[in-house]
Amino acid sequence: MITSAQNPLLKEIKRLQRKREGGRFVAEGEDLVAAADAAGWRAVHRLEAGIDVEPALLDGVSALGSGTRVLAVYEQRWAEAPVGPLALYLHGVGDPGNVGTILRGALAFGAGSVVLGPGCADPYGGKAVRASMGALFSVPVVRAALGDCPAPRIALVAREGAVLRGTDGAGTLVVGAERTGLPDEVVAGCEAVAHIPIAGESLNAAMAATVALYEFTKRLEP
Amino acid sequence: MITSAQNPLLKEIKRLQRKREGGRFVAEGEDLVAAADAAGWRAVHRLEAGIDVEPALLDGVSALGSGTRVLAVYEQRWAEAPVGPLALYLHGVGDPGNVGTILRGALAFGAGSVVLGPGCADPYGGKAVRASMGALFSVPVVRAALGDCPAPRIALVAREGAVLRGTDGAGTLVVGAERTGLPDEVVAGCEAVAHIPIAGESLNAAMAATVALYEFTKRLEP
Repeated sequence: MITSAQNPLLKEIKRLQRKREGGRFVAEGEDLVAAADAAGWRAVHRLEAGIDVEPALLDGVSALGSGTRVLAVYEQRWAEAPVGPLALYLHGVGDPGNVGTILRGALAFGAGSVVLGPGCADPYGGKAVRASMGALFSVPVVRAALGDCPAPRIALVAREGAVLRGTDGAGTLVVGAERTGLPDEVVAGCEAVAHIPIAGESLNAAMAATVALYEFTKRLEP
Repeated sequence: MITSAQNPLLKEIKRLQRKREGGRFVAEGEDLVAAADAAGWRAVHRLEAGIDVEPALLDGVSALGSGTRVLAVYEQRWAEAPVGPLALYLHGVGDPGNVGTILRGALAFGAGSVVLGPGCADPYGGKAVRASMGALFSVPVVRAALGDCPAPRIALVAREGAVLRGTDGAGTLVVGAERTGLPDEVVAGCEAVAHIPIAGESLNAAMAATVALYEFTKRLEP
């Protein structure tokens, strides 16, 4: 049992909470660790309060305000290339909560992978991991260029192009940041432009991605 | 210009940040205050950094980690009864971020009102107001019973009932908490049960509500 705050593992965890280095990341809480187990991930380190470490020391390295009962360190996994048939490509989605929520939507609606373009938040950061509710352990993530994503690539642009309609559930949904949207060169790299019909105001990136995934996959239901 | 932290208005704002009392609430940041302006809300108090108050003092009463440049106090508005034709009824949605995101979805897809049942987070709390991105100023909120909501009332229950399909965009979508779902007596008070088809895991309340609103309103498009 770890009984000193000077323990090297606790120090490593503290460093990882600030900055992912060496390809590792931290997941906290029973739900996330259970999601990792269920998805077949093996932790590099796993600390349970009162068994492996004194509870107060674990709380001391927790990024959660309320402390935690279990915390584990994993090796990041990155896919080598975008996985289809349906992929999601994010451009400039800098909010880690949105990236995590999008991973959750991707899992719910069966997307093959989430592809991160420039300016996206780190999916292995604490906020993104928490917002993903463990989906990060199941949905492949990859850093890749739009051109390497499955065609047709469909740019979601507010109030432009056709109304988004699901086809056969194959292709890449391209989602930009909430305020700035997709830059022209990204739209130019897509085969189609579509929008989600809304009555007022805007959707954030996570809501738009979730609705688009829904639209694209629901017709696949029997 | 306010130059003392002992100023009574700053003290009132600090109290309101902790606990809504006297039917007032705080909105921070240019975007939220602009949304209130656009929706025709008049602030009871409005403080701009450097004009009405010393910037450091405004930061001192801000609930945002980064401080704020403008902050305003408003009177809460509650609708007297659920507004249709399409309403959203929330039961036990205790997370303020979800309540705010649902308000945003309600605005985007043109729901008439968001009805709060038992166990829902305060839509006028800081987190909910921020997550709503100002939608709170445009979508009527009301505390009311399920029986007072427009029929048909459709309970969203994971993997039960029919696949959710939009009809004529009228009725009430009934959404429960992520983990516990809807209690039996709430489902019994609905005319129908439906689910959103998903491939894996679950959707959170905000994602489910957003997708359901989309499904219900998209057929109204020309």
